[in-house]
This record gives sequence, structure tokens and C-alpha cells, in this order.
Amino acid sequence: MIDALTPPARPLFQKLTTFIDAECRPAEEEFEEKLDGFKIIPEVLLALQRRAKELGIWNLFMTHLHNITVHDYGLMSEQMGTSFLAAYATNCAAPDTGNMEVLHDFGTALQKERFLGPLMDGGMRSAFLMTEPDVASSDARNVCTEFKKETRSGVEGYVVSGRKWWSTGAEDPRCEVFVVMGRVVENSVMSKHHTMLVVPSKSPGVTIVRSLTVFGYDDAPFGHAEVSLDDVWVSKEDSLLGEEGAGFKIAQSRLGPGRIHHCMRAIGLARRCFDVMVERMLTRKVFGKEMARHGMSQEKIADCKSDLDCARAITLLCADKIDRIGAKAARGDISMIKYAVPDFVLRIVDKAMQVHGGMGMCEDTMLPRAYSYVRTLRIADGPDEVHKMVVAREECKAALKRMGIAVGSKL
Amino acid sequence: MIDALTPPARPLFQKLTTFIDAECRPAEEEFEEKLDGFKIIPEVLLALQRRAKELGIWNLFMTHLHNITVHDYGLMSEQMGTSFLAAYATNCAAPDTGNMEVLHDFGTALQKERFLGPLMDGGMRSAFLMTEPDVASSDARNVCTEFKKETRSGVEGYVVSGRKWWSTGAEDPRCEVFVVMGRVVENSVMSKHHTMLVVPSKSPGVTIVRSLTVFGYDDAPFGHAEVSLDDVWVSKEDSLLGEEGAGFKIAQSRLGPGRIHHCMRAIGLARRCFDVMVERMLTRKVFGKEMARHGMSQEKIADCKSDLDCARAITLLCADKIDRIGAKAARGDISMIKYAVPDFVLRIVDKAMQVHGGMGMCEDTMLPRAYSYVRTLRIADGPDEVHKMVVAREECKAALKRMGIAVGSKL
Amino acid sequence: MIDALTPPARPLFQKLTTFIDAECRPAEEEFEEKLDGFKIIPEVLLALQRRAKELGIWNLFMTHLHNITVHDYGLMSEQMGTSFLAAYATNCAAPDTGNMEVLHDFGTALQKERFLGPLMDGGMRSAFLMTEPDVASSDARNVCTEFKKETRSGVEGYVVSGRKWWSTGAEDPRCEVFVVMGRVVENSVMSKHHTMLVVPSKSPGVTIVRSLTVFGYDDAPFGHAEVSLDDVWVSKEDSLLGEEGAGFKIAQSRLGPGRIHHCMRAIGLARRCFDVMVERMLTRKVFGKEMARHGMSQEKIADCKSDLDCARAITLLCADKIDRIGAKAARGDISMIKYAVPDFVLRIVDKAMQVHGGMGMCEDTMLPRAYSYVRTLRIADGPDEVHKMVVAREECKAALKRMGIAVGSKL
Amino acid sequence: MIDALTPPARPLFQKLTTFIDAECRPAEEEFEEKLDGFKIIPEVLLALQRRAKELGIWNLFMTHLHNITVHDYGLMSEQMGTSFLAAYATNCAAPDTGNMEVLHDFGTALQKERFLGPLMDGGMRSAFLMTEPDVASSDARNVCTEFKKETRSGVEGYVVSGRKWWSTGAEDPRCEVFVVMGRVVENSVMSKHHTMLVVPSKSPGVTIVRSLTVFGYDDAPFGHAEVSLDDVWVSKEDSLLGEEGAGFKIAQSRLGPGRIHHCMRAIGLARRCFDVMVERMLTRKVFGKEMARHGMSQEKIADCKSDLDCARAITLLCADKIDRIGAKAARGDISMIKYAVPDFVLRIVDKAMQVHGGMGMCEDTMLPRAYSYVRTLRIADGPDEVHKMVVAREECKAALKRMGIAVGSKL
Repeated sequence: MIDALTPPARPLFQKLTTFIDAECRPAEEEFEEKLDGFKIIPEVLLALQRRAKELGIWNLFMTHLHNITVHDYGLMSEQMGTSFLAAYATNCAAPDTGNMEVLHDFGTALQKERFLGPLMDGGMRSAFLMTEPDVASSDARNVCTEFKKETRSGVEGYVVSGRKWWSTGAEDPRCEVFVVMGRVVENSVMSKHHTMLVVPSKSPGVTIVRSLTVFGYDDAPFGHAEVSLDDVWVSKEDSLLGEEGAGFKIAQSRLGPGRIHHCMRAIGLARRCFDVMVERMLTRKVFGKEMARHGMSQEKIADCKSDLDCARAITLLCADKIDRIGAKAARGDISMIKYAVPDFVLRIVDKAMQVHGGMGMCEDTMLPRAYSYVRTLRIADGPDEVHKMVVAREECKAALKRMGIAVGSKL
Repeated sequence: MIDALTPPARPLFQKLTTFIDAECRPAEEEFEEKLDGFKIIPEVLLALQRRAKELGIWNLFMTHLHNITVHDYGLMSEQMGTSFLAAYATNCAAPDTGNMEVLHDFGTALQKERFLGPLMDGGMRSAFLMTEPDVASSDARNVCTEFKKETRSGVEGYVVSGRKWWSTGAEDPRCEVFVVMGRVVENSVMSKHHTMLVVPSKSPGVTIVRSLTVFGYDDAPFGHAEVSLDDVWVSKEDSLLGEEGAGFKIAQSRLGPGRIHHCMRAIGLARRCFDVMVERMLTRKVFGKEMARHGMSQEKIADCKSDLDCARAITLLCADKIDRIGAKAARGDISMIKYAVPDFVLRIVDKAMQVHGGMGMCEDTMLPRAYSYVRTLRIADGPDEVHKMVVAREECKAALKRMGIAVGSKL
Repeated sequence: MIDALTPPARPLFQKLTTFIDAECRPAEEEFEEKLDGFKIIPEVLLALQRRAKELGIWNLFMTHLHNITVHDYGLMSEQMGTSFLAAYATNCAAPDTGNMEVLHDFGTALQKERFLGPLMDGGMRSAFLMTEPDVASSDARNVCTEFKKETRSGVEGYVVSGRKWWSTGAEDPRCEVFVVMGRVVENSVMSKHHTMLVVPSKSPGVTIVRSLTVFGYDDAPFGHAEVSLDDVWVSKEDSLLGEEGAGFKIAQSRLGPGRIHHCMRAIGLARRCFDVMVERMLTRKVFGKEMARHGMSQEKIADCKSDLDCARAITLLCADKIDRIGAKAARGDISMIKYAVPDFVLRIVDKAMQVHGGMGMCEDTMLPRAYSYVRTLRIADGPDEVHKMVVAREECKAALKRMGIAVGSKL
Repeated sequence: MIDALTPPARPLFQKLTTFIDAECRPAEEEFEEKLDGFKIIPEVLLALQRRAKELGIWNLFMTHLHNITVHDYGLMSEQMGTSFLAAYATNCAAPDTGNMEVLHDFGTALQKERFLGPLMDGGMRSAFLMTEPDVASSDARNVCTEFKKETRSGVEGYVVSGRKWWSTGAEDPRCEVFVVMGRVVENSVMSKHHTMLVVPSKSPGVTIVRSLTVFGYDDAPFGHAEVSLDDVWVSKEDSLLGEEGAGFKIAQSRLGPGRIHHCMRAIGLARRCFDVMVERMLTRKVFGKEMARHGMSQEKIADCKSDLDCARAITLLCADKIDRIGAKAARGDISMIKYAVPDFVLRIVDKAMQVHGGMGMCEDTMLPRAYSYVRTLRIADGPDEVHKMVVAREECKAALKRMGIAVGSKL
């Protein structure tokens, strides 16, 4: 039942799977070869994008456009996770997905025309500037980029000043727009509440300081940038998303389905790692017999299998819950998969690496890259520890209710 | 969706839940107080049985009688797991459930009349004699109780000789019948294949050698007996289940749904332990604040929550799979939950014990008993290691198929 | 080097080891058979005591009497851990050891004559009454048994009122004395500081409420009692240990070397479990070959071996540190072994149980009893969580010092 | 006691520690900046080498030259592990250390003059060519590079043909010599036994195929090369190490002390990671207080502390055992630390990464590089699984002996 798609999703899923198996994974090698840092997007990816658009498997994350559910899209994300190119090829890659959702839900007509259209068309890319190097952003209230109110030439606006990092995609040559979190400053007083602005990435005062690496990978051509914003003036009309002080509400709206996508892609990737592990075990002999016949290997397979099934089950059930009761009510479950799934997946990838020996450490497999990517999921969108606090609080609230004790008195 | 019951199951589930919450758990204390070893069954349990029968929540494990699914019954088993008395009260306790299934599927009319009827009525109990102290029964082929062919007074029959243990329920004062696994011996040659016999428990030559304890518990009044069978003669007509050599087939038929029951009961028990843990944390102060406000406690809650949800998800999905494709085809999944679920549950129970301090070690909570019970699940019905081998083999077969390699050549 | 004994310790160690191997372990079976609850101490143990005294391996825990080190005695404790009777046989069992230390260090001449002498002679036993059922004793400041000041017949004294539990040894028929922690109450005001009193166990007002079980074990004939103290009057002169308010100092003085003893005994026990596990693997065949030839078994052996060696190494190094710089300065290490060692040992015992299958769950091996015993070590003398806090604080202090930051400002 | 150095080691240790703290760690930043792939060795490292030679802390791994023990050098290796440059600066880096030992123990006078001298002088570097991409080298018997006997111009010699990888240091611009493992082929028959040859790295037929990355790091300027050997002729006199068929003996002679070095360096690195973790916790605020005051942080500190102490204790005890009874007799312990230590260290590094959030994933800390490096230790010199088999076999042998059973009959 957990694999059941709604009728509108079935043909899309089928086309997507075929596309990934037959076109995305086979294109990975050429993509890698043609890479040239952040200068270009290899043509092979652009061709995949055209192809996906043609096939109608485009912007699937906007589930309402396709009349599909979060659960449907979860199953699709799992497939996308089996190729590093699939999410990009189908215009379903972060952070554009979250930014498009935000623009769709909170953007003005102008913002939609200028940014949402091109982003959905796939020719433009975007970045989300939230985390800051100088504060513990795991507690998002610490974010302190300044949006100083300043009217220029009679136009209301903000002067943006701050330093952001882990701005994924900011270096993509097609990146045109940033969604930036910060706090309004008026008369030298910084608001307690956060605000979200849309800032063109080529604005004067914006500087890409450097590309961050993850383990040793620069993740070109998308990358993770450190960005300096020095007195970047934007007009209020062009830039303000929703209203002042709505930053948290907007940020949180990104998170529910987004975590399903991340988790399911990680699970698809885990499945790919598991498959290559078992295949290796079946074809490699040590001490007189195939690795697969050794007890320690069998235990690894069995442990990976239950890890994989657990990760997948709780994530798909969470997706279904979002469909039924909404992301807000499913908040505890969303936090739970956020910390539980990467843990399962890392165990699988680690075992696959081990089974591959030296090959599992280097570029001859996608394993170390997979490990690095999934490891960041334990940090991104809030570290495990914060999500554990959320789950604990939800469970305590439920217990207090069951016990007939007022919540306020205890938490 | 995972909690969805079929229409026939809904009223049964509702009645069962109410019965357990309102009558079974509250009766536990009296049951404990009235216990007197293996001599009697406290009246409070007999009353619960009458009540359950009256309510029609009786023999629910025989899903076809109630037009419910394995998945439905899984959800019911979870509820039963929240009280030590519930499975007994509703005539759904092992090993009777498995024995009734076997008698139902393989028994002769005579066997059914003599044993199945009374067992289903709840007045008689039974035991399953499989494991032997002298051989590694984890490899069931080692089982070597002898069924020596011998005709007495012109009647074909067998002389049963062997030593069995972990015969749960054999000491229950109502126990009348054993289902015994062994091997036919003819002309001093022992068959390679196993056979299953029905043996009245009061037959001459049957001796209850002793009650085994689990950790320090004797689990009276049901217990786990060591049983000696010394030249116990039974007639073939009365005793043979199915045919000679069909022992494995019969034994395996018990196992699929049975493992769902065990796992779901363990999960229900884990939920109870989790609940008391959180409640304790909310009401007990250490170092100036409720335990629930301490970070180490929050991490425990979060970890338990994901463990619980994982265990539950994979078990219910497995139940659903049995409903859809049958226990045989779901073999890998059944083995997987067999080793994965007790591991999750033990982690939860262990944390609950820790949070309860000294109280968590002793009889003031059901926690150490819960731990002991769940710990045996890693051994019973085949140790984890054997089930891991099964899962590894299934995964290897699937990989070989995917790789286009003939299975025989590699496994 | 870690196994090096000082010269005075060598002959003692040799005699002790021989005594345990040749006399204690072989006596266990008879001891178990002759047990009759808390009524008697089986003669076989009394004979072992006489023998140990004769051999001069008596009260070895009083290291200064034998001119040996804490490290020497650690190695002896490890040997004692390999038999359930050894510590009792040599008068080195808790809680008498701690009580004797306390009486030795803080007792008056009268207290020493009346209690310390007989305890050291082995004919009397004692209990330590600290933990209370109604408060979270993991934060020892919560302990609230009252010592109300009251002069009777012109003699200064205290009226003791409270409820204690986990009073190990209180039911031993030879138990005569309790060391009790509580707080002085004067003019209806309870002191913030704790005080320690010596209370004869047969005093009017003392009631053994019940025997607590650990998992299902009552640990007779020593047991763990719940004790009620109802208006038990004792004279100050007879009872006060040290001075009023010195309770914590006295309690803590028990803890350093005591934890070495506990840990090393647990490690000795782990070694015994490990040995029987490997022996079983070498003699039991499954799936066509000895268990020891299966990869999953080999991994278990290897994991147990490193767990055992780690536990042993950090404990002996901690013992050595106590010898060199004293228990107070080694506080962090003592807390560390307190939580780290039981964790290692439980993993070993659990694997040994698993390898023994059904036999590993029942009384045919000492394994489940070993598990139960070691599991309590994660609670006794402060739960893991409290000791982790201690270690974290010590490490933070060291880091602050290294960083040149005043400690007070951060912790 | 575990920290005790022998008298000759004390001044060396002191000088080394000061050198690392005051000169090596501070030089890391400049080293990184000046790196230019495999083309040059930054001058800052060459200066450190001159300085170390001057200080007499040079070639310390050759313990007999300094009259120090393996245990002494283990403590020194720990210090070296705290800076990525220290082992290189002191001429104590792998694989030169192992190669120098081999040349010292098995080399001819000519080989010593030509290679050992320059290597010890620090101007030349070397590589060890063992692992092959096409076979499971975890079972070293699979290694199959061919040494075809061929006399040229009347000089006996070998034609070397094969493909090697993970040849660390082969791309260092100063690398002049390879130690190569393979098998002699005579009259088209390949020997079952392995042989070790010394091959000049600039010989015709030697090609550096590519640089392997570990996770994303190329580890320039030392690197890990894939090397092709195509019909490389070498004379027997110049090349043969020891005698034909002695390859395993020679390979194994490298391994004992070498594993102490690796483990202790990893432990030194773990200590550095632990320190930065705690410092970060003390200076970073989340949710209103320093991270160090949160319970989840405290548990991390406590877990790291025991992991670190365990890893360190078993490794130093193993070093001491090698000193006392030799590497061969300590074989089981050496294998044990090989799998146990990286596991402990990885847990520490992983926690340190987590605590650093995004910073912990990128080049702003040495953490991801540390993780990558230590992760390879679970593969290099034989994967964990092989070492677990060794330990299991040693333990089984000991048990059989204890049981009075002949070893041959069971293993």
C-alpha cells in the first residue's frame, strides 16, 4: 500500500523512472567529464532538461499543478535520488523548489513575473540565503543580517548588510535571485522578528566570497557559496516577500514537503548504494568464496535491508500524513524523519564503502560523494539535535494531554 | 493509511481496545496477587475470558472467521501487547494460536473434534514441542526426537522418545495436548525428514521435568517447561498431523502471521513502556527541573519515538504484504521484522528502565518483565542470525536476477 | 604493565585466584541448591569464608592492611567477579566494604568496637540506606529521611523517620547494622546538608517492608530490601558518623575505590561470559560446521574481545590514577568508568546469551543473572546520566583553563 | 603509568611536543596556501624538516637508533597526530617508514646505499605498491602482479607487469623508489608465493595513471596514485628484497609497529577534534545558553571522552606488549586495535563535525579531512573484517587450549 500511487501520478512516475534509468544515470559520466568548475553547465544536463520538459516530467514538486499528492511525489523523489542529475534535469532541485514555493505562495505579481516564471521555466536559478557564519543558525532566531529601512529617490526600500554562507546554487552561472532572511532595522532598532526579501543576485554590493567544499567536494557547478551583502539597496515593492516580520512563517512553509523530498532522495541514493554493495559481494571472491557467502557480509546485507525499509516506511507514512492532515499537524513526524533517515542512510552508505575497499573511498564509485551529501543532511535545515527537541516537545505535549495536565505548566 | 482497518475489523477493534483499556490492564494487579505457581489460573483471567467471548472478541487470530485481514489483526495484536492478560483473555495467546492453525489446516476430523474444538472454546490449552536441549535447534534440521514405528495390538503407531524444552504452556493446569516435532524411525533408520504428531499431554511416559525461568521469571501459570518423552506410544490415526515427512511444511505454516502477532504485541508493549517513561519524565524533578526538560531526556524521547515508529511501520507493511501476496512470497520481510523489531523494542524498554532508576529494575513496574519477554523474541522461532541469513539470501537472489545471473551458480 | 602487581600483592593474588578457581566456582551449584530464601546462609559459603580467612585472603579491600594498591586490588576484584561467591567468601562484598571503610574512617571508638570489628570478622553484615522510593535519588540532594533532634532521658539523639529501598543485604540473617543517610531536623527546620547515622538494624521502628526483585531475581540470601524507619530513636553518641552535615563527604569517600571494585568484578564476570560463549561456539554445530567457523560468530568474538579489553584497560588505568593522585583528583575518570564499563559488559553478556539460545535465557547458565546484575550498575551509585554530566563538567573546566577563561563565568 | 616514557625518550618527547605545538600546527595554514598539486613541496615543510633534523627529532620511528621503545614512539605518534605536517616534518610518515624498515631489515648493501640512505636523509621519498584494482586485495594472496624471470645481456632479472593503486606518495616530486609486491613467473608458471622487489620509480614502463581522491581530497602533494607497470625490467641483484617467496614475511614485518603508529596518530587527531569541539561548545550560544550547558552536548562530551580513553589505552597497552613479547606474539592485539581504534576515532570526529554545523563540513576546520583520513584506516592494511577474523581465530585457539582440545581439529 505504501507504494500505491494515485491515478494521475502513475503515468508520470512511469515516465520519470524510465527517463532516470535510461537517460540520467547513463549521462553522469559525461557530465562529470565536461565539468569546468562554476563556469558552465555541461550541455548534457541542459539536454536532459529539455527532454524532461518535453516528457512533461517537469516541476513535479509543484504537486498541485499535476494533481498529485506529497506521497506520490515522495515516491518520485526516491527515483530521483538514484541519479545525481535527475532532480536538476526535472527542475526539482533545491533550493529552487523551496524558492519557487515561497514565490508562488507569498510573491507579488511582479515578483512572480520576474522570478517565478523563469525559475519554473528552468532557465534561471536561485539561492536561499539564511545561515550565517557568525552565529549559531541552528537557532534561527540568531540570524542577524540587517535590512535597514532607507528611502532613496522617494522610494521606500532596505539596505541589506550581512554575511551568509551555505548558499547552495549561488554560483551557478544561471543564478539570478536570492531569497534572503534578515531583520528590519528602523531608527537603529533591530526588530525581533525576521523578514524575507527577494534580492537580485547581481545587485551592487553582492559578492561571492568563496566556494565552500563539503568534505573535499566543491559540488560544482551548483556549489555552496559564502556571500557578502554590503549595503545592497532594494526597493520594498520589488523585494519584500509577504510582510515585514513574516520571515519565520515563510521559512517554515518551505520545510514540510521539502524534508520529504530530501529524505526520499537520500533513500533512493541508499538503495543505489545497497544494490552496488550486493552486486559487488556476488562477484568478488575472498578467502575462497564470494563475499556474499561470508557471514559478516550476510549480516551487513540484512542490516542494510532493515535500515532501508525503516527509513522508507517512516518517510512515506509521513508524506501520507501531510496529505491527510497538513504539514503543520505532522510537524513532529517531519522532524523525526529529518534526524532518523540520514542516520539509516549513512549506515548503509558506510557499509557499501567498506565492502568496496579502496574503490569505495575514491571517485571510482559514487559512494564517498553520497556519504558527504547525506552527512550534510544531518546539519542542513536544522541539526538533528534541534529536531529531537521538537519531537520530544510534541511527545511531551501528547503525554500531558493524556495525563490531564495543562501543557503550559510543564513545558 | 497504515492504521486503516477494513470495515469488518472496525467494530471488533473498537470493542477490543475498550476491553483492554477498561478491563485487562486494570486486572493485572489482581492477577499477580492471586497467582499460585502453576496450580491455578486466577479467576480474574477466567472472568476476562468469559467477557471477551461474550463481546465476540474471541479467536480473532483466526482472521478468516471474522473476515478480517492479517493487517487488521496486526493492529489488534498491538493493542493486546499493552496488557499482559489481553492475549490470554481473548484466546489469542501463543502457542495455542499456532497449534489451532495447524490443527485447522492439517488435522483429521477426529483431531479437530478432540482438540481443536476445546482449544477454540478456551477451556483447553496446548503446547508446541520443538526445541531440544541437546542440539542446536536454530538449525531445525537438528531436531531428533524419535518417532519409532511400532504396531501395538494391531494398531499402527509410534513410540515417541526425546527431550524437549521451552515448551510454553505445558504446565498450564488446563494443558491437554502437545504438538511434537520429530523424525520417524523405521527399521532403525531415522528419516531425514521431520514429522509432526499430536500427543495427549497426559500420556504415560510424558514427564514435566522442570519449569524454566526467563531471567528470574517462571512466567507462571503458563510457564516454559522441559518435557521428557519416554516411550510414549500413540496411534498413527490419532496422532499423525498431515503425513510423515510433512513436519517442516507444517511448522513453517505457523510462522508467517505468527511473527506479525509477536512483533505487534511487542510494539504495543513498547508503546506502553514509552508512555510510562515520558510520564515519569514529566513528573519527576532532578537538578531543579523536570527530567523532561533535560537534554539527555529529550534525546531519549526522540530516539524512542523513531524506534517505535520504524518498528511499527515495517511490521504493518509486512502484514499488508502477507495479505496481498501471501506469507511465502513475503518470506524475506517476515524474517526481517523478526530480527529488526525486537532490537528496536529492547532499546525502548531499556531506556524506560533507565529513566525509572531503581524502580525500573524491580516489580514496581512491568519494565524488567517486558525486557525479559522481548529478549526471548531474539531467540524464539529461530535466532536473529538465521533470519539475517534468510534476508541476505533473498536479497542476493533478487540481485542475481537483476544482474542476469543464474541463481544456482552463486548461492 | 597493566597486569603488574606490587610485590606484596603477588602471593595474595595467587592464593586468591587458586581459591576462586578451585573452590568458589565449584561451590556455586551446591550454594544454589541449599538456598532457602533469606532464612539461612548455606553452610558451603560459611566454609568458604573460614577457608579464605585461613588463607589470609580476607578483607583485601582494606588495601592499607595488606600494603597493596587500589590497582592491585582491582586485579583481585576481577578474579572475584568470575564467581558469584568469591566476594562474599573473602569478606569483600558490598555494601559491607563501603560501610567498613566509613566506620574505619569516621567511626568513634565505640562504633568501631561494636560494628567494625564484627564486620571485619565476617560474622556480622550491614546495609547502606541511601536511596528513597519517593524522590529522584539520582540527585542525592533530594534524599529526605528525617533525623529529628530529640533528647530522651537526658541523652541527645535523633528520631529517624523515612522510607529507604535498594538496601542490599538488609535481609541477610546476619545483618545487624544500617548506615543511614538523612537530614537533621531541628525546631521543624530541615537542614540543607545531609548527615550519616549508624542505626542498629533491629531497633524498634525498623521494618523490612519487602524484598525487591531485579528482573525476576530476589538475590537471596542477601537481597535488596525496602525498609521503613518509623520513629527510630538513636542516641547521638552511638549513632552520629563524623559530624552533622558531613553526610555527603562521607558518602563520597565510599565511591572512588568502590567503583573500581564494581567495575573490575563486572569485567571478571564478562570474561567468564566471553569464555563460555567461545567454548559453546567451538562445540556446537549449526548448518554443517561449528558456530565458531561462521562469520557472524567471528564478528561477535572480535567485538567482545575489544569491548572487554577496553573496559579493562580504562578501569585499571583509573585504579592506577587513584593510587597516584587520589580519588578526588581522579573524579572524572571514576565517573567515566562508571558509565562506560557496564555498557561494554552488557554487550558482551548479551552476545553470550544470544549464542546460547534458549539455554542463555534460563537458569542453566549464569548469563541472565549476570545481565541483570550488570544492568543495575547503570543505576546504582548514580545513573549514567549523572556521571556523564560530571565528566562533561570536568572536561569543560579543563578546556576553559586551556583557553584562559575563568571557569566560573561559563559553568 | 601508561604515559610513562623511558629515560632516553623523555627529552625527545619534550622537544617533539614543543616543535609540533609551536611550529607544525602554526605552519599548516601557509602549507595549504602554497600547495600547487603534485608539482612542489611547499618550502614551509622543507624548513620544518631541516628544523626537526637539527633538533634531533628525526627518524624517531627507527626506535633502536634512539634507544626508545615502541611504547615511547607510540606516545610520540600521538603528538604527531595533532598536526597534519608533523610526521612529514620529522621523516616519520608512511609509507617511507615501512619502506625504510624493510630496506633496513632485508635490503642488500647496494639497496641500502642507493635508497635507504637518501630516504633516511629525507631528500628522497618512496611508495609501497601492494593493492591492485582488479583483485580483492583484502585477501593478500590474490595479489598477482607478475615478475617474469628474464635474463637480459647476461644479467638475471624480472619483467614486472601489473597494475597497482593506492600507492601513497608515488606522485610526490621527490619519490624515487617503489617497493612492489608480486609473484615470480618462471616458464609461464606463477609461483604461489609472493616476492618483494625494489623498483626505481622512473624506470621505463612505469606510468602514474592518475591520482585517486579520498572523498574529495587528492591529498597533494603526497597523493594516492594508480600506477601501471608495463614490462619494467629490473635486475635481480638490484631489486630482489630478501629472497623469492619472502614477500609475505617482509610485508608482515612492516605491520606490527606500523599499526601502533597509525592508531596513535589517529588518536592524537581525535584529541585535537575533541578539543575544538569542547571549545566550540563553550563559546557558542544556542537557545539562550552555551552549547556546553545543554544536556545533549554533555552526553556527547562524555561519550567522546570514554571513546578517546579506550582507544588510547588499548593501543598503548598493545605497544607495550610488542615491547615485551614481540609483534608476532602480540598479533591478536595488533589486529584488534586495527579495527577498534578507527571506529572510536570516527565517532569522535563525527560528533565534532556535528557540533560545528556547516563549518564542520567545510575547509574552515580540519574535521572533514580528519574524517576522510581516519575512514581509510578501516580499509588500509586489511579491512576490519579480516582483522576480526584474525582476532576470532586467536581467541578460539586460546579457548581450545584451555579446553584441552587440539587446535587443528576445530579451526
